[in-house]
Amino acid sequence: MKEWIQSRRTIRKYKSVPVDDALLNELLALAGRTQTMGNLQLYSVVVTRSQEQKERLSPAHFGQPMVTQAPVVLTICADFNRTSEWCRQRKANPGYDNFLSFINAASDALLFTQTFSCLAEEAGLGVCYLGTTVYQPLQIIETLQLPRLVMPVATLTVGWPDESPALSDRLPVAAFVHDETYHNYSPADIDQHYAAKESLPENQHFVSINHKETLAQVFAEIRYTKKDNEALSQVFLDALRQQGFL
Amino acid sequence: MKEWIQSRRTIRKYKSVPVDDALLNELLALAGRTQTMGNLQLYSVVVTRSQEQKERLSPAHFGQPMVTQAPVVLTICADFNRTSEWCRQRKANPGYDNFLSFINAASDALLFTQTFSCLAEEAGLGVCYLGTTVYQPLQIIETLQLPRLVMPVATLTVGWPDESPALSDRLPVAAFVHDETYHNYSPADIDQHYAAKESLPENQHFVSINHKETLAQVFAEIRYTKKDNEALSQVFLDALRQQGFL
Repeated sequence: MKEWIQSRRTIRKYKSVPVDDALLNELLALAGRTQTMGNLQLYSVVVTRSQEQKERLSPAHFGQPMVTQAPVVLTICADFNRTSEWCRQRKANPGYDNFLSFINAASDALLFTQTFSCLAEEAGLGVCYLGTTVYQPLQIIETLQLPRLVMPVATLTVGWPDESPALSDRLPVAAFVHDETYHNYSPADIDQHYAAKESLPENQHFVSINHKETLAQVFAEIRYTKKDNEALSQVFLDALRQQGFL
Repeated sequence: MKEWIQSRRTIRKYKSVPVDDALLNELLALAGRTQTMGNLQLYSVVVTRSQEQKERLSPAHFGQPMVTQAPVVLTICADFNRTSEWCRQRKANPGYDNFLSFINAASDALLFTQTFSCLAEEAGLGVCYLGTTVYQPLQIIETLQLPRLVMPVATLTVGWPDESPALSDRLPVAAFVHDETYHNYSPADIDQHYAAKESLPENQHFVSINHKETLAQVFAEIRYTKKDNEALSQVFLDALRQQGFL
């Protein structure tokens, strides 16, 4: 793992070669070894292979081309429905229609997803997380027919890589590791931690084509704005309520 | 990775041998290659090595012995504070004091944590997730001095294994994978998916020592009860509000 993780890249273009069912199932089963709360495995994975379903999912992901081009789209859900059904079939009263249970199931689902992502990349597959999953959950819920106590938390597109993008930058480890207590960031700390990122030609180009003065402005004023975040927070909370977690 | 993940175990007992700083930092840096929203790395890790801080953290984790025995305790936090500081230092107005931003940062933090966990286990270390992190976040926030827009979402105890527990069971892959749309579980499906788990001698013993009739009852009526879940939901939502995410 140490060998490939240093050079891992997110892959958004895939060969038109299918991903074998046996391989996919093997990787999903292996990812099932991931740590989980009380060994309950509070997640489900919906596998989309049909073109029709990909096209239905596409608008929820703002039409990003990976959704219809990737041979496989995985929607990973926080799932307390299965465990609750199990309880009901076993003379137990489930009490998982609440926010903490969403947090527990979402954590299980995300840890599972990341183990899967690592296994898939190590097997030579390319994957891409779609951050849009949490923007329009209601469309995904409807398309995948997710019942109460099931909430989508991650989407991965999966396929054989048909591109080899440049390695993306990362902050130095000192930027995110704190010794014993959290040490807040002085202006000098910020300068130091973000210097390399801000000086990269691709990031400077990104600032310039967006007609901004700083890279942070591109994020705060174009990509992830307060207005959008506030509107999407409401949508997500409404979806949690509809699915019975709030 | 395929080789060791099949036999991975959560480790709760550690040798009294330190975890080398250089190794820990290498693993943290490698885990930093994990996929992240907009490449913002919306997480921070607080490393606890001092006995004093471990003892302060211990009650938040219900006194579980791993906290004071493990050479290293990592508290991984959803962090929009650093990114917001960066924005403020770069003439940009951050808009991340909302629920969606918590979900985005928590996702980043959990994916990072699971990559770290895989790397650590592959390096021969033993780790244990502490689910208690989301039960008493306010105590952790105070002990680690987490500022606004920083919220603990996972804790890992880390050390060299001093036990080799039995492999825990998992559901068959068919129990959590759905083809194209979510297929809800019939009583027959539940019987089939949970049969192996329920027939294990250790799980039958667990039912018997808890004086219950079914394994599901142990979970729903003793380990994760509706009453506790509802009370802890309120605590978590209050902590999110205090930290500025709600």
